[in-house]
Amino acid sequence: MRQAGRYMPEYRAMRERYGFLELARNPEAAAEVTLQPVARLGVDAAILFADILLIVEPLGVGLEFAKGEGPVIHRPVRTEAAIARLPRVDVESAVPFVFEAVRRVKRALDGKVPLIGFAGAPFTVASYVVEGGPSRDYLHTKRLMYEEPEGWNRLMGILVDATARYLNGQIAAGAEAVQVFDSWVGVLAPDDYRTFVLPHTRALIRALTPNIPVIHFGTGTASLLPSMRAAGGDVIGLDWRVDLDLGWAAVGQDVAVQGNLDPVALLAPVAEIRRRAAAILGQAAGRPGHIFNLGHGVLPQTPVDHVHALVDAVHELSAR
Amino acid sequence: MRQAGRYMPEYRAMRERYGFLELARNPEAAAEVTLQPVARLGVDAAILFADILLIVEPLGVGLEFAKGEGPVIHRPVRTEAAIARLPRVDVESAVPFVFEAVRRVKRALDGKVPLIGFAGAPFTVASYVVEGGPSRDYLHTKRLMYEEPEGWNRLMGILVDATARYLNGQIAAGAEAVQVFDSWVGVLAPDDYRTFVLPHTRALIRALTPNIPVIHFGTGTASLLPSMRAAGGDVIGLDWRVDLDLGWAAVGQDVAVQGNLDPVALLAPVAEIRRRAAAILGQAAGRPGHIFNLGHGVLPQTPVDHVHALVDAVHELSAR
Repeated sequence: MRQAGRYMPEYRAMRERYGFLELARNPEAAAEVTLQPVARLGVDAAILFADILLIVEPLGVGLEFAKGEGPVIHRPVRTEAAIARLPRVDVESAVPFVFEAVRRVKRALDGKVPLIGFAGAPFTVASYVVEGGPSRDYLHTKRLMYEEPEGWNRLMGILVDATARYLNGQIAAGAEAVQVFDSWVGVLAPDDYRTFVLPHTRALIRALTPNIPVIHFGTGTASLLPSMRAAGGDVIGLDWRVDLDLGWAAVGQDVAVQGNLDPVALLAPVAEIRRRAAAILGQAAGRPGHIFNLGHGVLPQTPVDHVHALVDAVHELSAR
Repeated sequence: MRQAGRYMPEYRAMRERYGFLELARNPEAAAEVTLQPVARLGVDAAILFADILLIVEPLGVGLEFAKGEGPVIHRPVRTEAAIARLPRVDVESAVPFVFEAVRRVKRALDGKVPLIGFAGAPFTVASYVVEGGPSRDYLHTKRLMYEEPEGWNRLMGILVDATARYLNGQIAAGAEAVQVFDSWVGVLAPDDYRTFVLPHTRALIRALTPNIPVIHFGTGTASLLPSMRAAGGDVIGLDWRVDLDLGWAAVGQDVAVQGNLDPVALLAPVAEIRRRAAAILGQAAGRPGHIFNLGHGVLPQTPVDHVHALVDAVHELSAR
């Protein structure tokens, strides 16, 4: 999960100086934010500070991060005809600042911990492009799939191409692993996932630079896990809605898993956080291939010292 | 699912004359709304028009249905101390209009189709009481569970008692089956469901009048299904996020299941709706004990004739 965010005073201080997109576009500032949680929390890897929607800016859809409301896309794309008019995204010239941020972070880390790059999975990015922002029912996205499947597939193809270039650019700049966030894919019926998403996510993962571990993440995916595994990834993300041991069995124990503490648990007293971390490590049963993580991002209301206590608890309990 | 709603012109006409709570409190109008989909769509059962939050009004939490925003609870209850001050709910005197609506519907139906009563499950009702309305992360609800479990259990006990009286009152007035809606329970980790929800839902279902079928419904429940079955119910609701055959296997084929078309599919062309209905009936494989239904409520944007086409398709395809 993105480790930096509104729960950290040093991040809020940066946001007083920069708007969200401004921060993402400034390699020096983005590198500084990327490094904040490594210094503050003692985590085992850095995660690039960026946003999954940066690659849709060049599509001309009018991306804005409205204050307190998250991303807004002012000209959503909802029909096959509109999709046919989208330009090809020249990622290399559109987001050079991201690759520069990766290089700066790598120099600053100096090999102490690895750096994880990331991008949105094509479904989740497409859902923003089609809905115009976050959604509850994903009406427009599903309607496009059901009524104009060729338009849907064309949009997914554009995003697969751009995302592969985006991630391979991060890898070329020094990212040692990449994470593909399909955060909202859990709104789909399993059969719709298999028809409208799996082939595209598979094409993306196959287009990535070899020998770089890929983490394939989603939420609300309990019944999608076997299909997500079929789409690809060396590590499959599990959210808190599934028992870790059962989720691992569903994807197969020949892939690694990442997860799966409920981010809301970080608001509980530290003793309860430690109890829950121990329960997850117990479900992983000491098998190699479990990366401890939250099931989704840190909530803004989270006390920083609770996050620190979790990192300490995982280090201490894993060492036993 | 509630069959009447904003997608029906005859319902919208009623709502021009009555506010939402006013409609629910008027037995004559509530009965009329309950009967609208039976007349218009030819469904196989009537579902009472009411709201899951009617039973929390006597708690004095300030329930209001704000225009276009859904329910608001002006004085949410978030601590053990506040829960200790809640009055006992005298359901029989608080919602006599619901029981009167049931009697009126029964007389009007005259045995042509059965009438299903319903209530919210204690977790989902508690989440409104604690959050003050719909929520994304259920921070306050989970914090209450984690930090003040005795307060949580006390609140759940109050709601179990009130809900049992509410459903038994509907049954006494003539409801021939009841549905327990745990619509938002899918936000919980399976272990939290087992600890904080299952015992209460089980107590509720055990307190209901014998020999009346109980439908136990939730959404986002793929990994909760075995626990929901353990909590009780003659029929377990499946939403569209699970393959019907796998969901049925998860709850066990000695209970019935209900589901599981994605409500968004009703916006697709009729041919696609029929194809999807056939796919679900195919997964049920003609086994007795499958009640065809949506995975959640009809969306306001849905064309009425698409709902009608679905009812026709299910009748026609089931007869084969």
